[in-house]
Amino acid sequence: MLALKQLLKKENQLISATISKEIARLDPVIQPLIRHSLEAGGKRIRPGLTVLVGKAFGCRAQGLYELGCAVEFLHNATLIHDDIMDGASLRRSHPATHTVFGPKQAIMAGDVLLAASMLIIIRQQNMSIIERFAEAVAKTAAGQVKEIQSLHNAQMTADQYMEIITGKTAYLISSASEVGAVYAGADGDRVAAAAEFGLQIGIAFQLVDDALDIAPEEEIGKPTGGDLREGKFTPVLERYLESLPDQERETFCRLFSQGGLSEEHVQKTVLAMRALNCGEKTRKLADAHIALAETALEKFPPGVEREALFKVAHYIRTRKS
Amino acid sequence: MLALKQLLKKENQLISATISKEIARLDPVIQPLIRHSLEAGGKRIRPGLTVLVGKAFGCRAQGLYELGCAVEFLHNATLIHDDIMDGASLRRSHPATHTVFGPKQAIMAGDVLLAASMLIIIRQQNMSIIERFAEAVAKTAAGQVKEIQSLHNAQMTADQYMEIITGKTAYLISSASEVGAVYAGADGDRVAAAAEFGLQIGIAFQLVDDALDIAPEEEIGKPTGGDLREGKFTPVLERYLESLPDQERETFCRLFSQGGLSEEHVQKTVLAMRALNCGEKTRKLADAHIALAETALEKFPPGVEREALFKVAHYIRTRKS
Repeated sequence: MLALKQLLKKENQLISATISKEIARLDPVIQPLIRHSLEAGGKRIRPGLTVLVGKAFGCRAQGLYELGCAVEFLHNATLIHDDIMDGASLRRSHPATHTVFGPKQAIMAGDVLLAASMLIIIRQQNMSIIERFAEAVAKTAAGQVKEIQSLHNAQMTADQYMEIITGKTAYLISSASEVGAVYAGADGDRVAAAAEFGLQIGIAFQLVDDALDIAPEEEIGKPTGGDLREGKFTPVLERYLESLPDQERETFCRLFSQGGLSEEHVQKTVLAMRALNCGEKTRKLADAHIALAETALEKFPPGVEREALFKVAHYIRTRKS
Repeated sequence: MLALKQLLKKENQLISATISKEIARLDPVIQPLIRHSLEAGGKRIRPGLTVLVGKAFGCRAQGLYELGCAVEFLHNATLIHDDIMDGASLRRSHPATHTVFGPKQAIMAGDVLLAASMLIIIRQQNMSIIERFAEAVAKTAAGQVKEIQSLHNAQMTADQYMEIITGKTAYLISSASEVGAVYAGADGDRVAAAAEFGLQIGIAFQLVDDALDIAPEEEIGKPTGGDLREGKFTPVLERYLESLPDQERETFCRLFSQGGLSEEHVQKTVLAMRALNCGEKTRKLADAHIALAETALEKFPPGVEREALFKVAHYIRTRKS
């Protein structure tokens, strides 16, 4: 476990150095905004995936870190736009970009990051990667539209939920993994395995994210109960609703659908959700996806990177923030 | 003139048909948002440029219309994000996307259009075009950030103004023209001439746009005096300030810098600007750029498309909406 930590730490440093280098290439007026978003920390899971998958398939080129950087740029573009849309004031315990620079500059900072991520990808001159990457941008944005259109819907089916989280979260994580394999020149089956691995840990990642929404603010670096406040239907809410007597459930769903939960009601509901273990029950749903991810990983060449990817999958299931 | 109108009308119909076909390829949840923005009309100047320049250099491929469509998608992405940033409720006499679908979906609609425009470009499999296009996205967004950072600055220099409008407007128009020439396989000198032509009419376009800001709402399809209200420094304002006695100018600049012009003050100032011919004086500034554009056009092969492009340059100088 210590060796893995050191490996991940080393890769993380190389990724961060590449990110700083790429930020320095941008127009000087935009750099402070981008730095604010990208140098606030973050787990760098997506670029880490790109690098580890690429290395697992034998690639040792510096371009792999640039690809990872492009993935992180794209991810941060979505975070910046997300935080504006959600009116979120905190991100990773820091003020969100739009609260520091205003929503106008934040919208543009997201656009610059989208464009910059494409420019980095284009520099690699690999048509297949360029296509997959642009596809990921389009699908992620469409997934977010689906989520917005489903806000305050208390009758969401499991299929609808899965479609939304695949679009808004898992597809990009899948692409992060896939492009690492493509860049390394892996064959079709192994590229598919890399995409599947990313997709399944991406779904698990979002399930755990939903579970973490009811954890204390000091642990997650943003206000507790955000999903509830914004009207997002998640398995946490589903587990809670299952526990309510019919009439109480109906009343709750009516208020939720009308967007009318008071702050007091949100706080009270979060406490009830915790007492009912809705978070842990949601984490449990992630297990099947982690198992599928592990099956996909079996198709990777054995080695230290594959071991690290097993640990990444385990970390995603158990992470506390 | 009539033959030109028919040529432009025919090309416009082909461009619109391609746009409809490309919208139909998008995720169904996003299509209504994109249709709202793209089928509200618009002059289609940018895609028209791509097509006419490409044809001027001998290209007859359908891909030219797809390139034009990508340019129009990108342009509309910037309009949608622009209108959110400016809080503008009207666009081309229609409700802006964010007023119909809400700012959240509008931010994402812009992102989808950015991604979709890249996907269309990528499909053409021309690395040089892909690069120029992504560069245009990045520069346009950075130009808009520069504009935002310069709002309510009453001491802007001519150089600063030119840098801002080149970034936010002219660069994309230049790219629209340039990629037409690249796609047609024109040589380096002619590609440079196409880029220069687009750049100069782009600058002229923005100068005329600034002049039109004080024209009546029924002519321009959006509220009069928007630039003044938003704190944008333009040559129209510069001409107005030149006409004021020192003390009045100081008072005005102080209020403008503090963002404190009342609606009544905006209305009164617009009337004064009209009386002082500030709009026509700003249009005059466009003449030098139209002349440079015409010089660049001389390097194009003679033919009906080059004639049409001369008329486009003339139209940009004289347009009334």
